[in-house]
Amino acid sequence: MNGPNFEKYELIPVIAQDDETGVVLMLAYMNEVAYQETLSTKRVCYYSRSRQKLWRKGEESGNVQELKSIYFDCDADTILVKVVQVGGAACHEGYQSCFFRKIDPESKSVSVEGERVFDPSQVYGKK
Amino acid sequence: MNGPNFEKYELIPVIAQDDETGVVLMLAYMNEVAYQETLSTKRVCYYSRSRQKLWRKGEESGNVQELKSIYFDCDADTILVKVVQVGGAACHEGYQSCFFRKIDPESKSVSVEGERVFDPSQVYGKK
Repeated sequence: MNGPNFEKYELIPVIAQDDETGVVLMLAYMNEVAYQETLSTKRVCYYSRSRQKLWRKGEESGNVQELKSIYFDCDADTILVKVVQVGGAACHEGYQSCFFRKIDPESKSVSVEGERVFDPSQVYGKK
Repeated sequence: MNGPNFEKYELIPVIAQDDETGVVLMLAYMNEVAYQETLSTKRVCYYSRSRQKLWRKGEESGNVQELKSIYFDCDADTILVKVVQVGGAACHEGYQSCFFRKIDPESKSVSVEGERVFDPSQVYGKK
């Protein structure tokens, strides 16, 4: 296998992991253009499914992701990027990781884990 | 938000991470039935897109995933499970992680990172 199989899958899910701490930061998607741009710029570029265009992560917030290494899985249908998350927060809600909501398997209640790195209203502006 | 949004998404991608080491093991999918079974049994159950049925990970190989904790992301469209991977290998190719193929951004060549934990032909039998 030579890489993720964009011939079979137009969009491939991408797991972003903090290169130093191993914290899983987020999951997003790449099309082949985003993938090639990520390799050539060494800055992570996704494809936004909602906006239907390339999403250069951090373009607005400044919280870019510098690519340290990139992997694909045994089925060639998922990508893993290890990154340096500039600004310390990957999540638009201001948390380091988008996975800050934890579910208790017994009670099914949800609790927040981790603290806000930034206040979203300061970064993105109030509407 | 009370949990992953299965009303909006029939299948939700699930990142499995080793609870102790932080290694990202694999990505698979859950439907709501698989999700509820995972919570109640504390053993990870996926939904296999290719076989179109519940996939109790490790049923065949014995390499079950014991659930340590479970999270969902800010868009409620991705799940993160932290697990103990029994047998040490999540990948059907015998590697700890399914992400054992690394891409060099410059040359785009692929190298294998990590060693086989088991020989797949011994576990699954030769066809």
